[in-house]
Amino acid sequence: MTTTHQNPHQTIAERADHYPTRYVEQPGLVDRNDPVVAGTAEDGPFDGDHLQRIEEKGYTQVPELFTASEVERMRQELNRLAGDPEVLADERTITEAGSGALRSVFEVHRTNELFRSVARDPRLVARAEQVLGGPVAIHQSRVNFKPGFTGKEFSWHSDFETWHAEDGMPTPRAISVSIALTENHAYNGPLMIMPGSHRRFVSCVGETPEENYRSSLVMQGAGTPDEGSLTRLYEEYGIDVLTGGAGGAIWFDSNCMHASPGNITPAPRSNVFIVYSAADNECGAPYAAPAPRPEFLGAREHREVLQSH
Amino acid sequence: MTTTHQNPHQTIAERADHYPTRYVEQPGLVDRNDPVVAGTAEDGPFDGDHLQRIEEKGYTQVPELFTASEVERMRQELNRLAGDPEVLADERTITEAGSGALRSVFEVHRTNELFRSVARDPRLVARAEQVLGGPVAIHQSRVNFKPGFTGKEFSWHSDFETWHAEDGMPTPRAISVSIALTENHAYNGPLMIMPGSHRRFVSCVGETPEENYRSSLVMQGAGTPDEGSLTRLYEEYGIDVLTGGAGGAIWFDSNCMHASPGNITPAPRSNVFIVYSAADNECGAPYAAPAPRPEFLGAREHREVLQSH
Repeated sequence: MTTTHQNPHQTIAERADHYPTRYVEQPGLVDRNDPVVAGTAEDGPFDGDHLQRIEEKGYTQVPELFTASEVERMRQELNRLAGDPEVLADERTITEAGSGALRSVFEVHRTNELFRSVARDPRLVARAEQVLGGPVAIHQSRVNFKPGFTGKEFSWHSDFETWHAEDGMPTPRAISVSIALTENHAYNGPLMIMPGSHRRFVSCVGETPEENYRSSLVMQGAGTPDEGSLTRLYEEYGIDVLTGGAGGAIWFDSNCMHASPGNITPAPRSNVFIVYSAADNECGAPYAAPAPRPEFLGAREHREVLQSH
Repeated sequence: MTTTHQNPHQTIAERADHYPTRYVEQPGLVDRNDPVVAGTAEDGPFDGDHLQRIEEKGYTQVPELFTASEVERMRQELNRLAGDPEVLADERTITEAGSGALRSVFEVHRTNELFRSVARDPRLVARAEQVLGGPVAIHQSRVNFKPGFTGKEFSWHSDFETWHAEDGMPTPRAISVSIALTENHAYNGPLMIMPGSHRRFVSCVGETPEENYRSSLVMQGAGTPDEGSLTRLYEEYGIDVLTGGAGGAIWFDSNCMHASPGNITPAPRSNVFIVYSAADNECGAPYAAPAPRPEFLGAREHREVLQSH
């Protein structure tokens, strides 16, 4: 569908927008207009079952994709970052509202040697290429730390909704991988996904404030789906709670409706998170924001196209 | 152990206190000094496996203890209460901080005909008698409603710690039953228990403010276990997430370390909660509070001793 809504942020020549959000007057569900899995089992390490799960549920899990010693190195590096005053002071570092504890460090695929090599690891790049059907580039990377006792919840959202509205990502041809550095239990703030929800796009209501990213990374505002749409998606798809051991990877489509509950247990939770986008899915002007977010949150140009072979 | 700590709230002739809390200077773990299961499989409906689980883990689950139509009647009654202005204005009703939505209605075994009959149902009373080894009385009852999207978390605590400190309950010879009126999923704010933790008592630090109950039912303060003790218990016992269908009952010892996470999903959660105490475990002066809590939170005298036969 080509929307006829008036988009106040339309800064480049009039674009068709199949995924209107924030400038709409009513919330609602739009069917996805882009492929989920573009490649086949012959194209890479994912077998047919994995690709089918991504196609149908929007996600798949690969246990032990990284070894215990690789995980240990990443965990040590995350601990080092959490204690580095320069990192804590960097604008690419997000700290917990209230406690000031480390929550996320962004753009680690550029700033950190270890995580740069992880992001370019063929185990990841080849799978991303396979799903997206060609060369890929990194849209975003970060390491996340959800402490015990005080880890805050993150409410339901589609990452693509934000990337489309605020970064100008044209289509949801992007896939994220979350590499667990700690065990994900059902009780310590695990990822929850509505399986199948990646095939529907929830148009959200509410204009994007200027520099929205400064608060939205800690507390959600614009881009929050309405309760009616979430209830419809829940009734249609239910909720999967994704658990698994350290070193395992969760691959999930950029438009999955997902959330994570708070973590009130003593068990902290950390992971490495990398978003691969199809190389030709380069960001343009934001679809619904006064200005694009900074480069560390969403790569503006696909300067570094990755290839696994 | 007979504590030698100075208890400023010692209002009756000096009592030995095996479970010192709040008036202590350091937090710490004390081994339980009272039986968990006093009866045998011959004494009532629980078989040996159930009693063993209560003895070892501190809890057991009985699926489908109430029928679908009984659950439906209770759910309708809870909905009626949630819309009754008189109930909402009653001091025995707790509403969610912020939204004002119904969270709990206390003392329903006295004020509400349906829940009075539930609390006296032989399926419940006979099991409570069996565990506690004799006649029982109700210490507290309530119906709980945790709404979708905004259901708040409840941090780790032992109910007995509060009942001992603030109600003057001498020993943890009390058992609670939670009857699910909705399905308990891993994702909609389920009960979490550290299995085995009922054998340890966590002495908490921090004096009880006057009329503490007015805030503690919504937000926890005094009686909050320290993170060090919680981490020790977690490392020793782990965490069980208790899921199950509507109509199922969770029985758990009064000293279980338990919590429930927030509920950010669209699926609300409600239950009926009744605490049975051994008839001779009558409350005296509070062990660590300026004055006892009101009768609706903790029965002062066991005026109504229940018997299933």
